[in-house]
Amino acid sequence: MNKGHAVEILSVGTELLLGGTTNTDARDISEMLTTIGLNVFHHTVVGDNPARLRQAMEIAMGRADIIITTGGLGPTCDDLTKNVIAEALGLELVFVPEEEARLRGYFEQRRREMTPNNLQQCYLPAGCVRLVNDWGTAPGCVVERDGLTVIMLPGPPKECVNMMRHRVLPYLQSKGDGVIVSHNYKIFGMGESEMEFVLRDMMNESVNPTIAPYAKACECLVRITAKADSAEEAEALIAPAAEIVREKLGDVVYGVDLEGLDECVLRLLEQRGMTLSAAESCTGGLIAKRITDHPGASAVFLGGVVSYTNPVKEKILGVSAETIARCTVVSEPVAKEMCEHVRELTGSDLAVSVTGLAGPDGDGVHPVGTVCLGLATPEGTVTDTLNIPGRDRENVRQYASQHAFDLVRRYLTGLPVKTRTII
Amino acid sequence: MNKGHAVEILSVGTELLLGGTTNTDARDISEMLTTIGLNVFHHTVVGDNPARLRQAMEIAMGRADIIITTGGLGPTCDDLTKNVIAEALGLELVFVPEEEARLRGYFEQRRREMTPNNLQQCYLPAGCVRLVNDWGTAPGCVVERDGLTVIMLPGPPKECVNMMRHRVLPYLQSKGDGVIVSHNYKIFGMGESEMEFVLRDMMNESVNPTIAPYAKACECLVRITAKADSAEEAEALIAPAAEIVREKLGDVVYGVDLEGLDECVLRLLEQRGMTLSAAESCTGGLIAKRITDHPGASAVFLGGVVSYTNPVKEKILGVSAETIARCTVVSEPVAKEMCEHVRELTGSDLAVSVTGLAGPDGDGVHPVGTVCLGLATPEGTVTDTLNIPGRDRENVRQYASQHAFDLVRRYLTGLPVKTRTII
Repeated sequence: MNKGHAVEILSVGTELLLGGTTNTDARDISEMLTTIGLNVFHHTVVGDNPARLRQAMEIAMGRADIIITTGGLGPTCDDLTKNVIAEALGLELVFVPEEEARLRGYFEQRRREMTPNNLQQCYLPAGCVRLVNDWGTAPGCVVERDGLTVIMLPGPPKECVNMMRHRVLPYLQSKGDGVIVSHNYKIFGMGESEMEFVLRDMMNESVNPTIAPYAKACECLVRITAKADSAEEAEALIAPAAEIVREKLGDVVYGVDLEGLDECVLRLLEQRGMTLSAAESCTGGLIAKRITDHPGASAVFLGGVVSYTNPVKEKILGVSAETIARCTVVSEPVAKEMCEHVRELTGSDLAVSVTGLAGPDGDGVHPVGTVCLGLATPEGTVTDTLNIPGRDRENVRQYASQHAFDLVRRYLTGLPVKTRTII
Repeated sequence: MNKGHAVEILSVGTELLLGGTTNTDARDISEMLTTIGLNVFHHTVVGDNPARLRQAMEIAMGRADIIITTGGLGPTCDDLTKNVIAEALGLELVFVPEEEARLRGYFEQRRREMTPNNLQQCYLPAGCVRLVNDWGTAPGCVVERDGLTVIMLPGPPKECVNMMRHRVLPYLQSKGDGVIVSHNYKIFGMGESEMEFVLRDMMNESVNPTIAPYAKACECLVRITAKADSAEEAEALIAPAAEIVREKLGDVVYGVDLEGLDECVLRLLEQRGMTLSAAESCTGGLIAKRITDHPGASAVFLGGVVSYTNPVKEKILGVSAETIARCTVVSEPVAKEMCEHVRELTGSDLAVSVTGLAGPDGDGVHPVGTVCLGLATPEGTVTDTLNIPGRDRENVRQYASQHAFDLVRRYLTGLPVKTRTII
């Protein structure tokens, strides 16, 4: 196996093996490494167990030339990574007084007392490059030895990600041979297997760029990845393939490299100088939460009402009790009044509404997964009903919010707003 | 190394190594395995590469006696897991006609056309136990061979988790020697290192049960884990340790085995027969979203207003423009009006409000991370101001919502509601 810049991420922490914690560090580190042309071939997780960590380290040393460890650098007694790795590399740990000074400053600034166990974080392998941690207490480090690079990072995601971005990437950049550029063509309204069928010949023939399909929560994506000497050359390899993908898939492609339909809608509203509000029942604030996840949302998202119960629908939103009695609360007429009234209340250009049954309990009338949507615009209101069977509460809510954003996207890009109902 | 029921989870998928996807399967499988007394010692991730998968499989066979693979069973051409694993085990793949019938039914029921590539999912290793997938298209399987158990599961999280719960756990239950019981004592308002310092002696001495601290997003937890012949015996081992933990940590322990402060507040409201509403500015619907994540929320959470802009605060919530002008929008007087007015509008017993600066941009007056909270109750209103420096937008929002829930928890459990500001 070619060992030229093969990266392994070795995560240490019993909590990862007990299932309480997700290994987001391995994901985030991988994502950053691909941007500088480094290939991650393995992720490994072991617990806070010196023997198994040592063994995993030896396997990694046999197949990778860059090893990045996460976790086990903190102040607690099961933080053993530095000791075991230093031993595997035949290095001593030495006390770094600058780290003690930094630590004392860290606690003083936060007006917190520094417990003595924190000092264990001031020991680093002899001869290492120290990586100052401006986001937490435990420093990281880089050890270079016989063509092998070992990088140790703290485990808490916020610290790990910032250390990668601001300390490790600049260090590693010189090691990448070439540049990998990836773009994600994001898709809502077509399943993965249908998409793969449509693109199969193209994917099979693809070498550089490669074309690969991925299923995500309530959507999917096609990733086109090219490797070249420069970013410009890589982009030039991607462009013609991207054009064919767009042609074959049509208007289910909602954007490129966007985080989601929420960001897509935010950008479209910004471009058009328009504003949005939301009236949410079964999504319970999810639509508002998703769009306000993004900085700058306040320029286009005015707010809304979470009308999780009927009295709130009537009292704050002004939905007519008669409509609810006549049509039931999960109905297009109620969705229509919800979006029209929240648009009026907030003075937004557009307003979406969602009323439905997320489950697990039904209402005795509609099956769980029945969701009605409304979109109020200056030209009038459209409504739609979805049936989302065989999915759980979280999925129904997520899917309903996806569909609400897609309604707005379709309206803003001039596409037909009555979308296909995907089951 | 003792090989008695050592489990390795071997996840297959280039998307995991490129960083686009989080390995939630490994987390969820691990969590379920610990409940039946099986020890997970390794997680490994390799890409859709036959040689590296084969090599990883051989390493796993040398150190585990139960191997669970995820991913690579689907209809696309990079779904190679079955072929490689069967080869490593010296088995042929055979066509299973029942699977074809099931697949055709699956697509018919969803009124979707079945593309021919789906048939590749109907091949399984000779002599395996087939695991019917009621949540997707690709079946799983179990192969038993010379004391080694290999279980292959589909990668999409929803399918993987359901296959584990309904197919694999019943199958494996007989293999567990003893039962592991774990309880999580969840903590808000104390940092991990302070908690670890307080509990250090206890943790060092702990063998059965073990006591371990974990840091989570904006909170932390102590996990007490006992191993015994029965669940009852394990609980009896945990009880005295739990009592000491509660004594040492005090009222920062908000609950046991709860998903979060949102669930804690939901349960407290249920127990007391009280209702809640929310007026949210910088959290933008996050509080409403978090509490409505839980089934049954509609019995206690009436709804609220996402007043993301000043006109919405004034028009829907009735916050006085004069108060905003006099105190600025990020102020305790505005928080007070927000929660009092949303309580009046919805008719709830309690109401929380949040107004603050999540960043990245400030308002020129307050630093990013300044957040004002309000809690309106039948006995009056309390407000508080937090300073959450050095954190990003997501963190400020999450932390603000944590604090809002903690205000409600403290009120409902008779604790002082002016909480410490944790930085």
